[in-house]
Amino acid sequence: MENDKNVSKMLEEFGKDITAQIKKGKNPSFETASRTRSNITYDEKEGFLKLGNATEERNFINVAQTKRFMQTIAIAGKCHKFINENLHTSIRGLFYQLKYSLGEDIDENIFNEQSESNPLIEDLEAALGIRREGLHLNANRKGVLVGNMKVVDTFEKEKLEINASKMGRSGWSIPSDVDNDIEFVDIKAKYVIVVEKDALWQRLNEDGFWRKENAILISPQGQASRGTRRMLRKLADEGLPVYVFNDCDAWGWYIYWTIKTGSMNLAYIGKDIATPEARFIGVTMSDLEKYDFLQNMTMKANDVDIKRAQEMMSYPWISRHKEWVEELKKVIKTRKKLEQDTLQGPRLTFVDDYIKDKIKSKEFLP
Amino acid sequence: MENDKNVSKMLEEFGKDITAQIKKGKNPSFETASRTRSNITYDEKEGFLKLGNATEERNFINVAQTKRFMQTIAIAGKCHKFINENLHTSIRGLFYQLKYSLGEDIDENIFNEQSESNPLIEDLEAALGIRREGLHLNANRKGVLVGNMKVVDTFEKEKLEINASKMGRSGWSIPSDVDNDIEFVDIKAKYVIVVEKDALWQRLNEDGFWRKENAILISPQGQASRGTRRMLRKLADEGLPVYVFNDCDAWGWYIYWTIKTGSMNLAYIGKDIATPEARFIGVTMSDLEKYDFLQNMTMKANDVDIKRAQEMMSYPWISRHKEWVEELKKVIKTRKKLEQDTLQGPRLTFVDDYIKDKIKSKEFLP
Repeated sequence: MENDKNVSKMLEEFGKDITAQIKKGKNPSFETASRTRSNITYDEKEGFLKLGNATEERNFINVAQTKRFMQTIAIAGKCHKFINENLHTSIRGLFYQLKYSLGEDIDENIFNEQSESNPLIEDLEAALGIRREGLHLNANRKGVLVGNMKVVDTFEKEKLEINASKMGRSGWSIPSDVDNDIEFVDIKAKYVIVVEKDALWQRLNEDGFWRKENAILISPQGQASRGTRRMLRKLADEGLPVYVFNDCDAWGWYIYWTIKTGSMNLAYIGKDIATPEARFIGVTMSDLEKYDFLQNMTMKANDVDIKRAQEMMSYPWISRHKEWVEELKKVIKTRKKLEQDTLQGPRLTFVDDYIKDKIKSKEFLP
Repeated sequence: MENDKNVSKMLEEFGKDITAQIKKGKNPSFETASRTRSNITYDEKEGFLKLGNATEERNFINVAQTKRFMQTIAIAGKCHKFINENLHTSIRGLFYQLKYSLGEDIDENIFNEQSESNPLIEDLEAALGIRREGLHLNANRKGVLVGNMKVVDTFEKEKLEINASKMGRSGWSIPSDVDNDIEFVDIKAKYVIVVEKDALWQRLNEDGFWRKENAILISPQGQASRGTRRMLRKLADEGLPVYVFNDCDAWGWYIYWTIKTGSMNLAYIGKDIATPEARFIGVTMSDLEKYDFLQNMTMKANDVDIKRAQEMMSYPWISRHKEWVEELKKVIKTRKKLEQDTLQGPRLTFVDDYIKDKIKSKEFLP
């Protein structure tokens, strides 16, 4: 992964290259990976969404690009400054710094809307092969973790050791950046279980599920943040199997596939955040046949669920798995869906047994 | 606050009272506080929204109420069971337990939709004077804390001491229930600063703002959860001043007033979650006059902001403060609003100085 020293240097090289071009009387330009839909491919061998080889050139002397070129250089300059100050901000904080930059003497703002600066940050990330976190631009954080492992967080010049098995009811909040100045040590757990909903995470945490099973229990608390996706990739790199336990509905499937193969809009960092090794343990339509009581617990699938199921069957990375096609067909046919919370029906701790049973019998979808 | 033993006993008394009525050949009934709008009052002396003295009777033999009466008893029974098992769930988990209860032999479900069970949980809370957390029904959690204090969390039969000043970049996640089996000790901090956005919390945490200022730094991460509101009440009870730093817009004001006076829908537990001592340090329209650079940083207030500002001026608990009326009038007149993130404009650490300056000069709104 990138580190501050390297990134600072890369930004300097980037700047030097631009000024050298200007000095030579050239039209300054730089190359970035094309992030258009047509350049996003599913890598069958690796199992995630990534960019193809198409590149795009950004030119200063080009009516359509002059402003954006200048804006990108301004972003690079600011990020360089943040790194050297050893301070972080959000992309919104960056936007306001740029809005401030030209001061009151100049009528023109560098940026008027954050929608202008966001894609240019991605341009820079893709051009330099540096993730936003390496540019000191934090993303929204979400996600919580508990289990037999330790976090060594070098923060405010202090090296803090946080024991993720001593966090009580709260768990450890997964930060925006899980690469720089942070290490994960003493990972004694045997596998990772991801639970879509925080309420279920709380349920399982209370039961000491992770302790009894020696698992790392994570909730993305809905859609997984960049930090949580990166964390899962890192735990998979440590050799831990990753099991995902979600709702059987459009949203639950989406969360799973985003963890597994990455997503279109983050295809340019697919390798770093996708976990193709992930497996889906439920809840599934087949559970309805296995557990009688669930018959009474289904909800009517709405149009969004049905449309999503149909769309998913058209994605090659999903349609290649006949188990998923069968699952989605069942949803479309029965127009039913099922929440993971239903597993608390017979008794609150039933959900623990469900997960253990699924993992033990290797009953999961690819 | 309630504890498991008391709550269990109260539920038993509740059940005994109902059965005694039946044995006497009476129409079983119980009384609960009326939570209708007309029974919600602003307590001028105390400074929060609470229920008046109006009560409502729930009767079994009443065509409109029979089903709901039976449902409430079923909820009480389940909660009693959860307490005795020492297990917690969400209101969704409770809903599925009730849906399961009657089993497959009976065609009728106790509940079909969660919208049926939610108001009945509140009926029970209000009837018994027990908060949902005491009934072992966790609410959604949100909110993060860092500062010089310790948390003693008795969890899974273990007494864990969590040092809230040793949580690195992550902070301590504020749980759903901050009363039962949890204690706050060694509170060395001098005041509490609440920051609406998590991104700004991360910014201030990185600067060690809370350490330098000896403050407790909290972000509700948007609207404050029940847990965060209760936490603020508890810290105020320890004698700590509470300062709130939000956006100057409809949402930022709403978050502030919810923390300060409570809210209509939780008026029945107003005393426990409102912090009338809270003060609003910004951002404000007056900041535009004080800090020149902010002139260039405003956004256009939208219809929601304007409508909200007008509505707020009609609430007696707001209109009594002339400072707030002036502030809201400025928004309506200029049709401008301002984000807290703008304070990162001149330099990332400017936001630290802004807060310190506001508190030092006691420049805040009531």
